[in-house]
Amino acid sequence: MKARCVECGAAASLAAKPMRYACHCGGLLEVVHDFGDADAERLKDLFHRRLGERHTIGASGVWRYKELIAPELPDAFIVTRNEGNTGIYGPECVREFAGIRQLWLKAQSENPSGSFKDNGMTAAVSHGASLGYASFACTSTGNTSSSLSMYAATAGVPSLVLVPDEGISLNKVLQTLAYGAQVAAFPGTYDDGIRWLNENGEKNGCYVCNSVNPMRIEGQKSIVFELAQDLNWELPDWIVLPGGALSNASALGKGLRELFALGFIARLPRVAVVQAEGAGPFHRMVDASLSTLIPEPAPRTVASALNIGNPPSWRKALETLKLTAGVTTAVSDAEIMAAKACVDRSGIGCEPASAAAVAGLRKLVQGGVIHRDETAACILTGSLLKDTNAINSYHLGADYSEAPWRNGIRRVKLNEEFQVNLEE
Amino acid sequence: MKARCVECGAAASLAAKPMRYACHCGGLLEVVHDFGDADAERLKDLFHRRLGERHTIGASGVWRYKELIAPELPDAFIVTRNEGNTGIYGPECVREFAGIRQLWLKAQSENPSGSFKDNGMTAAVSHGASLGYASFACTSTGNTSSSLSMYAATAGVPSLVLVPDEGISLNKVLQTLAYGAQVAAFPGTYDDGIRWLNENGEKNGCYVCNSVNPMRIEGQKSIVFELAQDLNWELPDWIVLPGGALSNASALGKGLRELFALGFIARLPRVAVVQAEGAGPFHRMVDASLSTLIPEPAPRTVASALNIGNPPSWRKALETLKLTAGVTTAVSDAEIMAAKACVDRSGIGCEPASAAAVAGLRKLVQGGVIHRDETAACILTGSLLKDTNAINSYHLGADYSEAPWRNGIRRVKLNEEFQVNLEE
Repeated sequence: MKARCVECGAAASLAAKPMRYACHCGGLLEVVHDFGDADAERLKDLFHRRLGERHTIGASGVWRYKELIAPELPDAFIVTRNEGNTGIYGPECVREFAGIRQLWLKAQSENPSGSFKDNGMTAAVSHGASLGYASFACTSTGNTSSSLSMYAATAGVPSLVLVPDEGISLNKVLQTLAYGAQVAAFPGTYDDGIRWLNENGEKNGCYVCNSVNPMRIEGQKSIVFELAQDLNWELPDWIVLPGGALSNASALGKGLRELFALGFIARLPRVAVVQAEGAGPFHRMVDASLSTLIPEPAPRTVASALNIGNPPSWRKALETLKLTAGVTTAVSDAEIMAAKACVDRSGIGCEPASAAAVAGLRKLVQGGVIHRDETAACILTGSLLKDTNAINSYHLGADYSEAPWRNGIRRVKLNEEFQVNLEE
Repeated sequence: MKARCVECGAAASLAAKPMRYACHCGGLLEVVHDFGDADAERLKDLFHRRLGERHTIGASGVWRYKELIAPELPDAFIVTRNEGNTGIYGPECVREFAGIRQLWLKAQSENPSGSFKDNGMTAAVSHGASLGYASFACTSTGNTSSSLSMYAATAGVPSLVLVPDEGISLNKVLQTLAYGAQVAAFPGTYDDGIRWLNENGEKNGCYVCNSVNPMRIEGQKSIVFELAQDLNWELPDWIVLPGGALSNASALGKGLRELFALGFIARLPRVAVVQAEGAGPFHRMVDASLSTLIPEPAPRTVASALNIGNPPSWRKALETLKLTAGVTTAVSDAEIMAAKACVDRSGIGCEPASAAAVAGLRKLVQGGVIHRDETAACILTGSLLKDTNAINSYHLGADYSEAPWRNGIRRVKLNEEFQVNLEE
């Protein structure tokens, strides 16, 4: 596996220990493939035939596309839970909410650990195993840590998850604990944990699975591969996704670039990255046409998965915007929660961060950036079960008492007079 | 659709309104199929070809087997979320824990609402829609209600969920609220709610989706169909499943009976139904060779989905035991939680009720009922995300401080001295 620095262009190898996460210049690495004489029509046919697989790595919605993700990786090292294979849905109520002619929701929430992180994590853990690492680590309190600990458990190897000891939401760590990760809480910030792992992970024998790991990006490309295959290789006019650490935007751009270069798709969709207003440094940078990102020192949003002030992958995400004539926007917590209530009520459901994509699409349509006669797909990144506190506060709490689709619990007496009135 | 009473044998029709949930004699109904000249080899081939479907009802792990579930149902009424398609896994650590030669875990936890209820609910809601019902109801505080509300939302029709107002666990109702069900809390017991719906559901225009609905059993048969297909139509020696309302045991028996009669499988596996000690009236009845079930007036178990004192489907479950030379057992809450910790640590994960199956298998192997050289499959009924309180109390609470695989959170300082020690 070869890589290059996205800043200085220097080459790097990912074929042997020690794993490289960044260039000597500090820039992020991205995997470089030699697709040689890859034939899109032949591969489309192969990918189509693999849809019926149940007992090989082709049963995974990531490894189905192995030729485009990690062709050199020996199958024996692949750690998979049949991730991907997620549905695309077109609920009328959400389409109407967004105000667009045609809408798909791509539900990465249906992944085995409940979030899109699984698409990338299966690639990272498999790659780490192929290099001979026997333990894995990350700094995270959320979807990344539960995904990593699930794959480490599946491989039967230990994992370490570092979490800042202030303001840990226990709820977000429980899934990680259940899968058996060693969770270590330290005094300091998220960035302190990242830095410690970068400096000390290798000498402690750990393969580090934070979002800057270039193999995670390779795995996450499969989200747009699967979307394209499900739509018979004709993508919608727009793909809209939430932006936190921006790894998803990075992976989407790389995946689109490769699909287009290889001739899988004849036309590139435009990409819209939606941030939360309280954690929107990337949007602010793009909006003000700045050349560098100014971190948000105190990020704050109800969409906890987007609560990131200094997104490490912003340069890669910017490349995605350049490639696709993309745009950014930012939405308020109230807009996020209203969109979530709508997606939940459609029967699909999602966590708040995912709903930011739908809220952002609505805003971009209302603002005329996206035309109502265009088509769009929103990536739903995490399951509704990932954040039941958000459901509680929306439907039962005090803050959203006038909110649309708020549900609540009625008190009734089951006697002759009680009549069901489901229209009220 | 035709049915017959499992007690008096009287015929009933399910082909038109009003929907029938029980016989005039009070007995439960079961669907009767005329499979005519169904050819198992031809159907196996058809089911195999459908594995690659993504855009038809054949993409569902339930409707893939439509010919065996509801052949008369027009496709246009089918409300599906591509339920089923769940993985089978053979983690070594769980096999070792159970003490058996070969073990599969069938992860119904991977269903879209997070539990096996989806397999049955898609059939019930689709059938209700085909009869012309435009609203749906159930009494439940758990997996049934979230599944029903998800399918009603998918169909774009309203649903009513009745819950007893004492001792509601808000956590269990949140998913249901999110999907948009009208949740009504009443003073009384779970049985009061069931009775009210039986007497008043029809005049309020509701199709009732409680576990006695015979269409739910038809859908749930698909769990063993999919298991059999994944194992190339050779089932293991034992299938082990948790027993609460006993609809799963009923559906498993009916599915096995039909697979065997039609020649899909050459040999019937034996079935083991595992109850919680605090909610084990079915096990006590079988153990004491009683002819009727004596309800448990105060059921109490950590496995909330098994907290049922008067399981309505006990006669059907008893038929399953007779058909398959089946057995029952009961396990303690501590045994359930230890088994859950083991399944979680394997990377599969489950809610406590599911773990009862693994705990029961271990107990039956230790007791010599199941031989260690036999093979078994355990049905995991619900997702680990369904009950994060159980994870909290096990890994972080006081009650399980000496429990195996208990995890906890370490406090560390990220300095030069901190060393990762993942073996300790």
